[in-house]
Amino acid sequence: MKISFIGSGNVAWHLSQALKLHGNRIVQVYSRKPGNALKLANVLNSEYTSDFNSLSTEADIYIISISDDALIEICKNKLLKAKINNKLVVHTAGSINIDILKKLSLNIGVLYPLQTFSKKKEIDFSKIPICVEANTKIKENYLKNIADKISDNVRILTSNQRQHLHLAAVFACNFTNHFYSIAENILQNNKMDFDILLPLIKETTNKIEKFNPTSVQTGPAYRDDQKILKKHIELLKKYPDLQKMYNFVSENILKSKAK
Amino acid sequence: MKISFIGSGNVAWHLSQALKLHGNRIVQVYSRKPGNALKLANVLNSEYTSDFNSLSTEADIYIISISDDALIEICKNKLLKAKINNKLVVHTAGSINIDILKKLSLNIGVLYPLQTFSKKKEIDFSKIPICVEANTKIKENYLKNIADKISDNVRILTSNQRQHLHLAAVFACNFTNHFYSIAENILQNNKMDFDILLPLIKETTNKIEKFNPTSVQTGPAYRDDQKILKKHIELLKKYPDLQKMYNFVSENILKSKAK
Repeated sequence: MKISFIGSGNVAWHLSQALKLHGNRIVQVYSRKPGNALKLANVLNSEYTSDFNSLSTEADIYIISISDDALIEICKNKLLKAKINNKLVVHTAGSINIDILKKLSLNIGVLYPLQTFSKKKEIDFSKIPICVEANTKIKENYLKNIADKISDNVRILTSNQRQHLHLAAVFACNFTNHFYSIAENILQNNKMDFDILLPLIKETTNKIEKFNPTSVQTGPAYRDDQKILKKHIELLKKYPDLQKMYNFVSENILKSKAK
Repeated sequence: MKISFIGSGNVAWHLSQALKLHGNRIVQVYSRKPGNALKLANVLNSEYTSDFNSLSTEADIYIISISDDALIEICKNKLLKAKINNKLVVHTAGSINIDILKKLSLNIGVLYPLQTFSKKKEIDFSKIPICVEANTKIKENYLKNIADKISDNVRILTSNQRQHLHLAAVFACNFTNHFYSIAENILQNNKMDFDILLPLIKETTNKIEKFNPTSVQTGPAYRDDQKILKKHIELLKKYPDLQKMYNFVSENILKSKAK
């Protein structure tokens, strides 16, 4: 396929290269900042522009990979709509409904790769789940075929499912990382390094590859071990927010167990 | 060394076998339940008993590896104290001060392996952090030498540090597992499987092996992306506890960033 990218951020950076690697031609990269467009275009050996007037009309698919706010704005752009001329336009956002693209084209879809990307870090796209959606079965199959070439883990999801998936990912990744960060602070305040926890963290994630997380829950809250719960609250006495967090999560663990 | 185990639970099960493997002789296993003592004694080729009157006086070290509540109780046992006869007595608990053992002997210590154990699952002890404490420098070195033989990751920690380590582990492992469990529920309620999150979870933990967790925090709360935060709260409208949790953790992430 001939593909144009609108956007040159972390997702565009990796997704465009993976698509190129698997037989697609990247026609052009658009970014508001010409320097950013140029950088990615150089890697892809494609054209670049920072002006919608110069947008190539040669592409079969336009992939818009920009921030949610910018996506909402760009969908109102008449010039972009004219250039796309009802060809397939796709976004890569977790939490934005496919329907927003209706303002730009009659043929719309989503390719949402569920991973955190950073330009510096190479990534094996074959293991990354890609969530596919389109407004017709034909376009859905078309996008699925493209996605299947770059990933072994392609799922057809509705916008509603994708939004819930993003929410679940916030709990499973952003919030857990924040708890690693809290653990790090507790250790540093007591002259210990975070790395002492790594084997236990690894074992925790090894377990959930084999068993569902609800079935392997452990810890003082799960055991309703009031002596330890009280001791932990006491250890956190200088940190009222963490005390509140500890109590709240512990109570939630106990409630979930009761269900 | 000649070692007796008081207790035959998960920690005793793995620690005793690792100690035996590395040149120690396990003299005897005590458990309140003779069947449990027998099972572990069979694996270790040692004696067993469920009666303090029959406790062997031959051991150099007595390792008490039982629940916190049972440990607090057992330390009051006069018969056990007489049998130990001021030889080295050690506990394996994360949240109990070393001083509790003063009731049993003049020579006391702690060997706290930081891992979750289950009897069914074999474990490579060499990677497990073992936290060592003793009431004299000589005994501390003595226990450290024993621990160094079974683990590459031995740390000398005070009781206060060990208690904070346990608290940090609750955040980094028990609480994170609960969040995996919440993510699982959100996915199941929307007809998706938990395994779609595994690559992202793996990448999250890969990152914290190289960078400190505070420096790699991402997500809508960290970006203060109010549109997504509102959308997520809306998606959780049927689950007031999760809404509260989502808000509370998100606010805490933003506050931590501001610091």
